[in-house]
Amino acid sequence: MPEKFSGADVIVLGIDPAIRTTGYGVIRVEGTHIGILDCGTIVNGQKLPHSECVRRIYGGIAELVATYHPDAAAVESPFVGRNASTAIILGMARGALLTALSNAGVPAFSYTPSAGKQAATGRGSATKEQVAVMLSFELGISIEQIPLDSTDALALAICHAQRALHPEYGKLGNPL
Amino acid sequence: MPEKFSGADVIVLGIDPAIRTTGYGVIRVEGTHIGILDCGTIVNGQKLPHSECVRRIYGGIAELVATYHPDAAAVESPFVGRNASTAIILGMARGALLTALSNAGVPAFSYTPSAGKQAATGRGSATKEQVAVMLSFELGISIEQIPLDSTDALALAICHAQRALHPEYGKLGNPL
Repeated sequence: MPEKFSGADVIVLGIDPAIRTTGYGVIRVEGTHIGILDCGTIVNGQKLPHSECVRRIYGGIAELVATYHPDAAAVESPFVGRNASTAIILGMARGALLTALSNAGVPAFSYTPSAGKQAATGRGSATKEQVAVMLSFELGISIEQIPLDSTDALALAICHAQRALHPEYGKLGNPL
Repeated sequence: MPEKFSGADVIVLGIDPAIRTTGYGVIRVEGTHIGILDCGTIVNGQKLPHSECVRRIYGGIAELVATYHPDAAAVESPFVGRNASTAIILGMARGALLTALSNAGVPAFSYTPSAGKQAATGRGSATKEQVAVMLSFELGISIEQIPLDSTDALALAICHAQRALHPEYGKLGNPL
């Protein structure tokens, strides 16, 4: 968790995308206070065709953008494995959410999962459970309110806000 | 080129997607007549960020759908190479166009390039130039009106229309 946030307000939407479960988290930094505006997952059942999955991811992200008007989005950089078939499907999920962001004029930046965890917990190798515990402690909310699949997304949002407000924490992620 | 089209009207949008150059072609089959309603490319300069590329692909496909109200879309099945990084980027282009189709309720089917070329020219290994020559001859239009990067898309559209109207030519492509 960053030691300080001050001097500017910022709303950041963090997104951890996948075709079946896309985690999201929206945070607002106001003065020295960080609050979670929303967090959750866009879940697509195993039997849903890809056309329906991308429609739901696009629609879900578009709705979050319309509701919270984020200044920026922090998107998890893809893990590039060896399987090109899997990569195409992950790419489809990314394409859908990036279209929703771009259509609404929200700039998107890419961060590694470990950069997010480092920003949120001080440790890049933290588990989802550890991130959730730390977030609930630091933000004063119940851990039940943080779905595990949204912890990476929340951590990415914190990472971006930290760097946007305090460049000494590191440079912004690659623009998408 | 199919020997006959009759008994039903159908409008098909063929798409050959890539992040930098997406080919498209719209055909209408009316009785025994096939006509090209539109064909061209959505070109994204090398310097455009991916967020802008997917926005333009989404917007271009959405505009074609709004203009021609296709009954279905025929999308080129991806060539799955060994490079997962390239596959993610191709997937992003596919995700953007599939979102545009799905948002508009247009069903999409996947076909291999060779199935398209086989349908359009009788030969699955035809070159883009050969497909263009055959299309201009069969459809009675000038070859200058057919951009080479749209020939695969037009061939896919013909392939889908052929199978949709005459199942003896083969089964429909995999629904996306």
